[in-house]
Formats: sequence, structure tokens, C-alpha cells
Amino acid sequence: MTEFELIARFFTRPSRERQGVGDDCALIDAGDRTFAITCDMLVEQRHFFSDADPEALGHKALAVNLSDLAAAGATPRCFLLALALPRADEGWLAAFARGLFGLAEAFDCELIGGDTTRAPQWHEAPGPLTICITALGETPPGQALSRAGARPGDDLWVSGTLGDAALALALADGSATAGAADRQACSARFDRPTPRVRLGERLRGLASAAIDVSDGLLGDLAHIAERSRVGARLRWDDLPRSEALRRQPAALQQRCALAGGDDYELLLTAPPDRRAQVIAAGRDAGVPVTRIGEILAAPGIAVLDADGANMETPFSAFDHFRS
Amino acid sequence: MTEFELIARFFTRPSRERQGVGDDCALIDAGDRTFAITCDMLVEQRHFFSDADPEALGHKALAVNLSDLAAAGATPRCFLLALALPRADEGWLAAFARGLFGLAEAFDCELIGGDTTRAPQWHEAPGPLTICITALGETPPGQALSRAGARPGDDLWVSGTLGDAALALALADGSATAGAADRQACSARFDRPTPRVRLGERLRGLASAAIDVSDGLLGDLAHIAERSRVGARLRWDDLPRSEALRRQPAALQQRCALAGGDDYELLLTAPPDRRAQVIAAGRDAGVPVTRIGEILAAPGIAVLDADGANMETPFSAFDHFRS
Repeated sequence: MTEFELIARFFTRPSRERQGVGDDCALIDAGDRTFAITCDMLVEQRHFFSDADPEALGHKALAVNLSDLAAAGATPRCFLLALALPRADEGWLAAFARGLFGLAEAFDCELIGGDTTRAPQWHEAPGPLTICITALGETPPGQALSRAGARPGDDLWVSGTLGDAALALALADGSATAGAADRQACSARFDRPTPRVRLGERLRGLASAAIDVSDGLLGDLAHIAERSRVGARLRWDDLPRSEALRRQPAALQQRCALAGGDDYELLLTAPPDRRAQVIAAGRDAGVPVTRIGEILAAPGIAVLDADGANMETPFSAFDHFRS
Repeated sequence: MTEFELIARFFTRPSRERQGVGDDCALIDAGDRTFAITCDMLVEQRHFFSDADPEALGHKALAVNLSDLAAAGATPRCFLLALALPRADEGWLAAFARGLFGLAEAFDCELIGGDTTRAPQWHEAPGPLTICITALGETPPGQALSRAGARPGDDLWVSGTLGDAALALALADGSATAGAADRQACSARFDRPTPRVRLGERLRGLASAAIDVSDGLLGDLAHIAERSRVGARLRWDDLPRSEALRRQPAALQQRCALAGGDDYELLLTAPPDRRAQVIAAGRDAGVPVTRIGEILAAPGIAVLDADGANMETPFSAFDHFRS
């Protein structure tokens, strides 16, 4: 049993609420509406570097939660912020608040409460900085999206482009090189992801399943496949990649686009007779959506090359997500 | 400006929701009901010792949140659990889950989601263990209790007994001594507080203001006074104290009962014509309630001795909570 299977064993319980531990959001039936609620904890030196730009960190801490709401098709309403701060530095706090509230105001998502505490002295050093945000959104009753509704024959779609955040990390650790413009474009994607909230709202009643791409395309597709009890096939050539990523070697492109995390794009499925509506949803939301494959009845996830042959990817480790 | 005033400056915003940052719970209007939501972060070596009993810790981590719901008069519904774990130890996890779910099931409060991550290596040591729970409860529309409704002439009441948790700390650090039975009774109060959920529910439509005693009686009373723009007077002799606390020296009794935190009793106000109903609410909820003073129009908090004279308490530091 892995560490996380062990943890899942103790904290996964049957739930009377519509969705439980393990989906992007938990759903709460509130009569005339459904609330979607999600919680993410970010810890210094685990999820971000100690020298992370505080404004970007404030943005990203909320963005990852709004992205979960987007995957549920929920309209953001409010959030709570719990902080363990190693110190109260005015410049740092001002920048963090600027990033946080800039994004919050863009989506009319209000800070309504929280908890602030001082991080302990831990082995002679204060810290780590820990940020835990709980975000709430709402949908009309019963209209929230989940990972569980994909059907064989459904199209597979993704918003925006894939792999730029992973390329930013590769550029930062020196395992890739690029010009200044590409570096900047990728850093912006990593530091300040745009949660696809407006797209998620437009997918209510349209997408059969959705998830946000936080762990990497294949990993998150495997979550949909597992929950929907289906398989999937996708075409490498169709995967939307930025110009910056397309300038990288093929192997790195594959690693970034197929297995790179932190994109915060939406991966979704919809019946083929909804194609025009899905494209219109993307247009209305201001982000392109690209059809990248199909849902299959047989389990397993295949990546096809330009000739329709199975591509060998080094990412079969994700197979263990399948039941 | 103190550190926490600085933090408040950046994270306190005007809110369209009914209550904002700083109350026990934030309230969310959901049409046919009001949701109360609260979030507490507990950090190792800040809120609990590294050798804390994991079962007690699981209980207490949820209890502090349910106590906030109780102060809002909300019926618990569900919670999210975010954990940063230094290690995945099966025995520790099993005990923590036992304490957590034991309390959750007692109040039919379901775990619906969360986030588990590994705590970082921080200056060569894994940790600290960090627990962030967000709890949701509900009340009929508009019936949630707040700190803001106390009126001059209202009675001041408190549930249970005060100061036992603080005495447990004094016994643990050697600044007080007691027999084995008293030690055990106080430890139980500190380790496994009983959130006064059933009392809070019965106070809806009855109490004019409520708060849970987490920072100490005078500090939490000052929060009611500040939010309600009133003052208060309480009689030392009327403060409910356990037999264990009454066996301690007078000065320690005062420190524990007036300024000791972690009691998680409810402090509430209600008009004098509701006395019989408040007492009945306590009886129905299975916890005694004691009338300890009155709300005054003039600002300030006075503690009176048996002769009705102002007692000098060493806790005037709490005065700064008053505006």
C-alpha cells in the first residue's frame, strides 16, 4: 500500500452528499442551488519556492481553487483563507493581497473569513508558510459537472494550450533552454494560471464530464476514465501547444504536454452532436477549445501518432490510476 | 501597528455576505437556509505539542470548528480536511481518524472533501504537521447567531464551567499541582472539548449574541462588546468553576476562569424575560447554563467581587479589544 493509499483508507468514507472525497469539488445540495466547495493547502518548499513572488503566489493560491470550481461548472461566490505566516512583513503581505484580491475581484469571489496564525519555530527556523484556501461556488440545482459522466463515443476536449507550466519548470531548472520571450510566456503560465471559470459555467448541461488539468493531461484523463469506467484515445498531433512549446525538442514537448502539471486548463467530454456548442462555449468564454480524442468503452488510455499508431510514451506510470 | 493589525489591514474587506472576517463563522445566504462556514488551521508546536495524542488531536481539530458553528447556532452538516503530514504512519493515522470521525459521527457531520499533502523537509526535519478544517453548518434563513446583537440590559450567560483547560496547561507546565483525579478531569477538558452544538441550536431566536470561549472569557466577552458596541459587568462569584479549579489558589482560579482559553463553552446574551427559556435550552442540550452578569450601555468590562466592588484583574490587556 502506498502512502497515499494508506491515507485514503482512513479518510475516504461513503457520503450522502452527491460527490465525496476525490472529486475536484464536493457538492452540497441546498434546495434551489448546488454549492461546490473545494480546499487546497499550499506549503512552502512543497508547492512553491521560498523566494516565490508574493503577488504571483496570492494569485495562484486562489487560482488553483477557482480552477476546481471551474471543473465543477460552478460560479465562484466566496472563499476562506487560512494562513500560517512565518513573519508579518508589510511588503510581502501587500503584494500577496494584491495578487489574491486581483483574481478574487476578477471573478467577484469574496473573502468571507479565515484564520491567521504564526508559523512555529521549526528546528530553529520560522515556517513554513502555509496557505489553505477553501472556495465556494454555486450552480443551478443538479447542474454541477463531475468526472463521472463520460460515455463511450464522447469527444475529448481541452481548453487553451498544454505544457507551458511544465516547460517553465524545465527552463527554471536548466533542463531546457529558450529565448527570453518564450521564458516569459511560460513563467506567466506557471505563476499566474487563469482558472477557466467562464468556460466551466458555459459547460453546464453541455459537457458530460470535466476535470482541471492540474496533475498533467494523462493523469487527469485517467481520473475521468476511472470515475466514468471508460477508456480514451487521443491524437498527439491534435494536442494544443503554444509556439514556445513547439520550439522545444519532441521528447520534451511530449513530457510537458502529456504529463506536465499546473496548466489549469479544463479537460472535458461531450457527445459529438454538441461540437458546435462546445466551440461556441469556448468562444464566449474567451479561450479556445480543441478536440483531442474520443472516449472508448474499453479501459486504457492510448496516445496515437500521426499515422494512427500507438505512441510509446514514458508516462505509462499513470496506468495505475485505472482500476 | 501590531503584527495582527497589519494582517487585518490587508485581509479585512467590506463584505456583501451577512458577516465577514472576524466573526466565529461567515454566513452565506442560500435562499431557504443560511450556511455558516468556519475554518481553523492548527499547526504543530504552535497549537499542539509534537507528542499530542493523535486520537485527541483528531477530536480537537474538528471540535474547535464545531464550536464555531455552535456559536452561530448552526447545525453541523459537513467538513473538509486539509492535512500536511510529515509522514504516513498507520497507527497515528488510525488514531487521528478515530478521534476525528468519532466526533463527526456524534454530530452527523460528514467529511466531504479535502487535500492531503506531505509536509516539506524544513531545515532538515519533516514537518510541521498542519491541520486545516473547514466546517459547514446551517440554520433556518436569517436565524444564525452573531457577536453583534447584545443590548444594554441583556443578561450574560455561559455554559458549563470555565478555566479547566487553562488549569490543564498549568498542571502540565508545573505551575500548578493537583491530585490525579483533578489532573485527569482537566486534561479531558483540554484534550477533548465538547462543542456546545446542541445548545447553540436551541439558542436560535433566543440569544441576542453568542461567541465560543476560545481565547478566554474576558477576551471573548470583549469581542461581543466591541461588535455590539456595549459594555458588560460580571460577578466573579457567579462564574461557574469545576471542583478541580475551586481547589486551586484564588489568583490561579481567576487567571484560568477569566483569561484561560480553550474552554469551548458558549458565552451568550439574552433579554431578562428569556431567563426560563435559556435555562430550559441548557437543560435540553445537556449542559448547565449560568447567568454571570449583564450587558451595559457604557463601554468597558468590569469584574465585580462579592461586595460589588470592581476587582482588579491582571487581565486588562484585553482592554485593547474594546474600541
